[in-house]
Amino acid sequence: MDDTDLPVLIYATFPSIDEAKNIGGALVDARLAACVNVFPGMVSIYEWEGARETAEEVAMIIKTRKGLTEQVMAEVKRLHPYDLPALLVLPTEGGSAEYCAWIVRETQGTNT
Amino acid sequence: MDDTDLPVLIYATFPSIDEAKNIGGALVDARLAACVNVFPGMVSIYEWEGARETAEEVAMIIKTRKGLTEQVMAEVKRLHPYDLPALLVLPTEGGSAEYCAWIVRETQGTNT
Amino acid sequence: MDDTDLPVLIYATFPSIDEAKNIGGALVDARLAACVNVFPGMVSIYEWEGARETAEEVAMIIKTRKGLTEQVMAEVKRLHPYDLPALLVLPTEGGSAEYCAWIVRETQGTNT
Repeated sequence: MDDTDLPVLIYATFPSIDEAKNIGGALVDARLAACVNVFPGMVSIYEWEGARETAEEVAMIIKTRKGLTEQVMAEVKRLHPYDLPALLVLPTEGGSAEYCAWIVRETQGTNT
Repeated sequence: MDDTDLPVLIYATFPSIDEAKNIGGALVDARLAACVNVFPGMVSIYEWEGARETAEEVAMIIKTRKGLTEQVMAEVKRLHPYDLPALLVLPTEGGSAEYCAWIVRETQGTNT
Repeated sequence: MDDTDLPVLIYATFPSIDEAKNIGGALVDARLAACVNVFPGMVSIYEWEGARETAEEVAMIIKTRKGLTEQVMAEVKRLHPYDLPALLVLPTEGGSAEYCAWIVRETQGTNT
């Protein structure tokens, strides 16, 4: 398998389930992601401008190919309501051969 | 630590909490996984046969050793209701020494 | 980016949302983590002293820098109610440059 076809998981967070579904759906429609998994009911704790914040957020795992990482992150940033969205790239060591091939098929001919 | 004993996380998804619990429990009983963490209420968005699908699924993180990756994926595929189950392998850089040793102990003498 | 500044995700589990929030908040206050994401309602399946256990737990993703991994795990172990808390380190291949820089800024001058 070509290195750029290796699956990666991009981890991102959103303020609401609707915004997560909208942006996740846009990534799938644009064939930038084969699939997104959305996790509502997540609680984020972080410091913002000196004060500790606790906020209800929605996490998302974006399943795509290594070669599309930059395009996916650019599109999420374009669509995301935050000025500084969380975007981290998790490498994989592959997976089931059939599923990895499916991810490659579903992210061919990205229409962005 | 022997490379095959390094912990990995295998990420999988299931159509229901019961199926996830059954298959996750079977992996633990077979000592193919030290532990599985099941996340109900996940929402999947993907394209299937040309149409965008949004489905409620259950995510699972399977905690096992690198050396058992292929056996774990074969067993999940054998038991899973989908023709093409999602199975991706996430590498780790270890963790707490005690917890990594526990994973190795709990996955000795796999009985499949 | 200096290798020790590369983001990592540390995956941990807790018996309750309150304990997860307390310990996660302590990591953020100590600037050992830029952010923690807490996932209530997770179900764990594992074997303990020969019997299969199914327990409701809370998962946490701790966003920090590679160079702080050992300190973060030591602090979680110090505060955690379990004798053997789950602690696994997931490497990243970076993420959005701005977000990776934010993680570095938020974990400077750790006060432990």
